[in-house]
Amino acid sequence: MKKLLVLVMVFALTLSFVGMAAAQGDSPLQGSMEDEYVMVTFVSGIEYWKPAYRGMEEAAANLGVSTRYTGATDYDINQQVTVLEQVISQQPAGILLTAINPDALVGPINRAMEAGIPVVTFDADSPNSNRYSFLATSNYEAGVKAANYLADLNDEEGNLGLITIPGQLNHEERARGFQETIANDYPNMEVVSVQDGQSDQAASARAMGSMIQANPDLVGVFTTEASTGVGAATAVEEANMVDNIDIVSFDTDPGTLDFVESGVIDATLAQGTWNMGYWGQMFLFHLKEGLLNPIENGNWQEAGINPLPDYVDTGVNLVTQDNVEFYMGE
Amino acid sequence: MKKLLVLVMVFALTLSFVGMAAAQGDSPLQGSMEDEYVMVTFVSGIEYWKPAYRGMEEAAANLGVSTRYTGATDYDINQQVTVLEQVISQQPAGILLTAINPDALVGPINRAMEAGIPVVTFDADSPNSNRYSFLATSNYEAGVKAANYLADLNDEEGNLGLITIPGQLNHEERARGFQETIANDYPNMEVVSVQDGQSDQAASARAMGSMIQANPDLVGVFTTEASTGVGAATAVEEANMVDNIDIVSFDTDPGTLDFVESGVIDATLAQGTWNMGYWGQMFLFHLKEGLLNPIENGNWQEAGINPLPDYVDTGVNLVTQDNVEFYMGE
Repeated sequence: MKKLLVLVMVFALTLSFVGMAAAQGDSPLQGSMEDEYVMVTFVSGIEYWKPAYRGMEEAAANLGVSTRYTGATDYDINQQVTVLEQVISQQPAGILLTAINPDALVGPINRAMEAGIPVVTFDADSPNSNRYSFLATSNYEAGVKAANYLADLNDEEGNLGLITIPGQLNHEERARGFQETIANDYPNMEVVSVQDGQSDQAASARAMGSMIQANPDLVGVFTTEASTGVGAATAVEEANMVDNIDIVSFDTDPGTLDFVESGVIDATLAQGTWNMGYWGQMFLFHLKEGLLNPIENGNWQEAGINPLPDYVDTGVNLVTQDNVEFYMGE
Repeated sequence: MKKLLVLVMVFALTLSFVGMAAAQGDSPLQGSMEDEYVMVTFVSGIEYWKPAYRGMEEAAANLGVSTRYTGATDYDINQQVTVLEQVISQQPAGILLTAINPDALVGPINRAMEAGIPVVTFDADSPNSNRYSFLATSNYEAGVKAANYLADLNDEEGNLGLITIPGQLNHEERARGFQETIANDYPNMEVVSVQDGQSDQAASARAMGSMIQANPDLVGVFTTEASTGVGAATAVEEANMVDNIDIVSFDTDPGTLDFVESGVIDATLAQGTWNMGYWGQMFLFHLKEGLLNPIENGNWQEAGINPLPDYVDTGVNLVTQDNVEFYMGE
């Protein structure tokens, strides 16, 4: 009888585990921890990628799958090609990739896709490859947001400056969104000076200094990059113009956030990097598990169509003195 | 002893159910069937919304939540306001809304958001409301795709026509994407004629007829709307120019698909409506369940930021003779 009891107990436990497994299996949104999704970046050690990978990890935790982070440690095209090819050879469940350059990775990306490994890009695209989707900040829209915010702060009136990096596509888009919005939507505002910040703090401080001298009535400036913003903030502080000139900058590195906290930089635009990682992982999981069904007759593979959204603009959020604490010490 | 056995069996079954429940509860991506998410449209009976609602239903099935479809039956602003306010009063888990007009629904949308009911828009936006995100076709990018396809078909050479609806924003964007791409990327191609199709089949056929007479060397035409494409196809067929003039049209209604099948329309652009519904439901679920965590310190509500991507371009797919069968009889 004791034996029977033990047998029944074992049966009970088995039933319980089967129940658990069945329930897990019931949800198409639960994967296997054996499926590993890989994020591949370049200059892989910088802080900038951390929220993106955190987003990927959180999506993977919700989905019950694994992730791994890797990348080229340097800003080196060949290095990223090598790292990507190594990742492909390990046949991961999917690859979330930011491309060092629009064309360098087309070959490996297409080979991965042909081998059945889905690739989605984030932050920097490889538009001529066969990748399924791209998640990033719309730099043009970020420039629009900067323009609207500076207009709001100044009752839609006054002269503005712009310090950017000419010749670099993402910065040109930010500048264009800013300039077109001021020109089209604010008849009493004008961008009177556009300077090259050279992505350098000291150069940007000098540019800002001479901009103030030439335009003493300046009410605001948009800096399209973080060290540019810090340089401009230093110059505005030195010129004792903090109350006169509003600065809107980009990204949330510690130097920028300190100037937001002290009120010298009025706002900085935080990119939606967490969302790039989170929804990038969601997209890859849906591809891997065959959950996308955009057409009713047959499947998208046979029809030769892209089953995913082409592009996700993850947006920017304004970080001001009111909410800077939530971004500090990340 | 028999009693003990029965007791152990009951214990076993209980354990099994507890196991199942625990496993279900383990996944943050499983909701409750009591949570109902509602899609609200206008002219709610048309075929166009069906793939969007199917996408929403499929996401809801994966997530274990309920959905309901409703909308204004007519193209009537007040009617949609009334329907939306009724939906809000029932306190659903979330609302996926297409807005009849950019400004008419700002009030009710913002009231829903204040009441804690998340709102996401699709297909047609309410950009001045507080809605979290917008999922739709980028009409500009669709125009770019049409231009590239006509260029590919004609070895990047020859004169093109465009039949559109001037003054309607989505059509102007499609036209602009098309014209700018031809002007900037194809030096041996030119858009030599732009006509108003008046969203009418007969008017479009007449416009196409006179376009052919004035430009007998035409190699292709882009029609930005479905009845325009059908009208143009009729005229091209009548003029015996099917082999000379390639047509790229928009959407996948039965008349257009018939002309794609017979080869008169070379390609039509299918919108990603299923993806609007699928990812719109995913976004609403994540808002309702508190699964979004874009900042590390505190939560996004306190920080006053938008936790979701601003905009999703659901993209367009080319439907040609090769894959038209997958779109027919939907």
